[in-house]
Amino acid sequence: MIPAAIQLGLDLEVLAEADGSSARLAATAVGDTLDLDTVLGFARGVDVLTFDHEHVPQPVLAALVEAGVVVRPGPAALQYAQDKLRMREHLEALGFPVPDWAPVVTAGELDAFLAAHGGVAVLKTARGGYDGKGVRVVRSAAEATDWIDAAAAGGPPLLVEEAVAFTRELAQQVARRPGGELAVYPLVESVQRDGVCAEVIAPAPHAGRVAQAAARIATGIAEALEVVGMLAVELFETDDGRILVNELAMRPHNSGHWSIEGAVTSQFEQHLRAVADLPLGSADAREPWTVMVNILGGPADGSLDRARRQALAAQPAVAVHLYGKSPRPGRKLGHVTASGVDLDDVAYRARAAAAAFD
Amino acid sequence: MIPAAIQLGLDLEVLAEADGSSARLAATAVGDTLDLDTVLGFARGVDVLTFDHEHVPQPVLAALVEAGVVVRPGPAALQYAQDKLRMREHLEALGFPVPDWAPVVTAGELDAFLAAHGGVAVLKTARGGYDGKGVRVVRSAAEATDWIDAAAAGGPPLLVEEAVAFTRELAQQVARRPGGELAVYPLVESVQRDGVCAEVIAPAPHAGRVAQAAARIATGIAEALEVVGMLAVELFETDDGRILVNELAMRPHNSGHWSIEGAVTSQFEQHLRAVADLPLGSADAREPWTVMVNILGGPADGSLDRARRQALAAQPAVAVHLYGKSPRPGRKLGHVTASGVDLDDVAYRARAAAAAFD
Repeated sequence: MIPAAIQLGLDLEVLAEADGSSARLAATAVGDTLDLDTVLGFARGVDVLTFDHEHVPQPVLAALVEAGVVVRPGPAALQYAQDKLRMREHLEALGFPVPDWAPVVTAGELDAFLAAHGGVAVLKTARGGYDGKGVRVVRSAAEATDWIDAAAAGGPPLLVEEAVAFTRELAQQVARRPGGELAVYPLVESVQRDGVCAEVIAPAPHAGRVAQAAARIATGIAEALEVVGMLAVELFETDDGRILVNELAMRPHNSGHWSIEGAVTSQFEQHLRAVADLPLGSADAREPWTVMVNILGGPADGSLDRARRQALAAQPAVAVHLYGKSPRPGRKLGHVTASGVDLDDVAYRARAAAAAFD
Repeated sequence: MIPAAIQLGLDLEVLAEADGSSARLAATAVGDTLDLDTVLGFARGVDVLTFDHEHVPQPVLAALVEAGVVVRPGPAALQYAQDKLRMREHLEALGFPVPDWAPVVTAGELDAFLAAHGGVAVLKTARGGYDGKGVRVVRSAAEATDWIDAAAAGGPPLLVEEAVAFTRELAQQVARRPGGELAVYPLVESVQRDGVCAEVIAPAPHAGRVAQAAARIATGIAEALEVVGMLAVELFETDDGRILVNELAMRPHNSGHWSIEGAVTSQFEQHLRAVADLPLGSADAREPWTVMVNILGGPADGSLDRARRQALAAQPAVAVHLYGKSPRPGRKLGHVTASGVDLDDVAYRARAAAAAFD
């Protein structure tokens, strides 16, 4: 969000979790974002507080609001991005399409769900998961006794979901201002590998009516939950043509990184506009196709510099973004973005630039 | 350059001249950029030193090079952006097209030049001028005794140039890497008001052969002077179809702000790539037309916040850039950029957004 804040002339102050974090460039403070006193002390000087992850606990958020800090998105909305159990309950109650699911406390409950859903399902921890962590495919409760025991001992509660037979994954982003103004981004296709987003194609090819349904679902959720800022709704498109809500994120999201070059207003600028209660920008795509490919893991020799030179030399029209992190297997080190009129060409260029980092 | 450094994963350290300067966001040090010890101390920790203005004196630059600091662009090139007298001498000697000119020490020399050029000419101080400062139109040496006396007393030397009968002003940017790789931006038209850039149209309409000539001149200058980084060549297009070199800048330049949204690689990213000796990016335009309009002076009531809201609300597809400066008559507070396929529409939207700040 730093470049967007610079552009708009907004003063951005950052509470970074550690000296080595990617936020360090603009960090005005380093401290524990789980600790109430740390966050309160930081928040005293700002007009509005927002987030680039959803891990600030509800008690801390409640205390911030109590102390008069303007928190956007607010705790009442943010709980549904923090807790998958609450999210499933609430979205189902509101009538949004979700996979079959159930809370799991005992092994018997899990086995019963498995028996009713073809013997395979997805077990999730309600809190703390990301990038495939906190999610596992199970065929028997016996495979999951560690998580069931951990939940019983006070760890994150569990839920189980049907293993959705999906043709592809989609993501729909919208931005919402406090007064209700909305900006709706094009629906995108996200390609996951090993539970991690590998690639995003904007707009999702051949989306047709699905794109309208996705926009309705995401704007409906943003309004019902009174989200302020960016909302990303991850979706499954099923074999039988339905779309189901997978996850929610209430912040700039990997599925929207394409928008930095690919949309008139990037998700980062849009998030700042929304939480600062400024008029929203156009969410239109700037070119017919944009493809974003994540840089995951990095070169085995650890030399990002050589890989960066290679990527820039080979693909002069691809934007290369590096996050200042050290290579580590599977880690998101950056991403690349290409835009243009021919999807095959755009995807080829983006993948070729990212491949320089393999 | 901060957003571009964040994107590329380069560590940018900034020596800002004052706490209140626009560079403060990334300022890792605040100090006098004219002072050798200050600059040397700052430079000790960096791989390469570059500039966002040309006011660091040659003796300081020479001492930096002597101390082993990698300075890009180097002092030998930078002198021609710092000193208009040396620039005119050198470009003329190299055969580049420049207006008729002469150094001025005495009133008699100035009157002789005026007599030979229709009785009107442009007097300039060789150093320290910008945005119309250090430039005045004269009809008699008697009008300029203050500057002639100041030069005699050790102030900046003077030169006089013919008052070029030009149809419009143009600017040609190129980037050059240490090894010689070049990237050539589209020729742009720059509209000046009161000696200050008010508006830039990219590409320059109806440029035809002039565009080819401008590219040849700018790449020729970059190569002859061994510029590293961005070079902007300000040009006059004359009534009789010639183009003449007006000024040089060896850094990101107001005539290239359109490239942030309008080009595949912005001038800021390109400057960093060039001085860090990374492969250059594409300098192609992203859309048929891009128009940049400067925000000059700001609202009389001093309320940039209200003006920003108004601009964002009225023009959701225009990028608004504010530099964090306070309103003051004539001051460059920011700029706006619009892109699209229809020049009239693009120019209208950019001008409307900028007008919100009047």
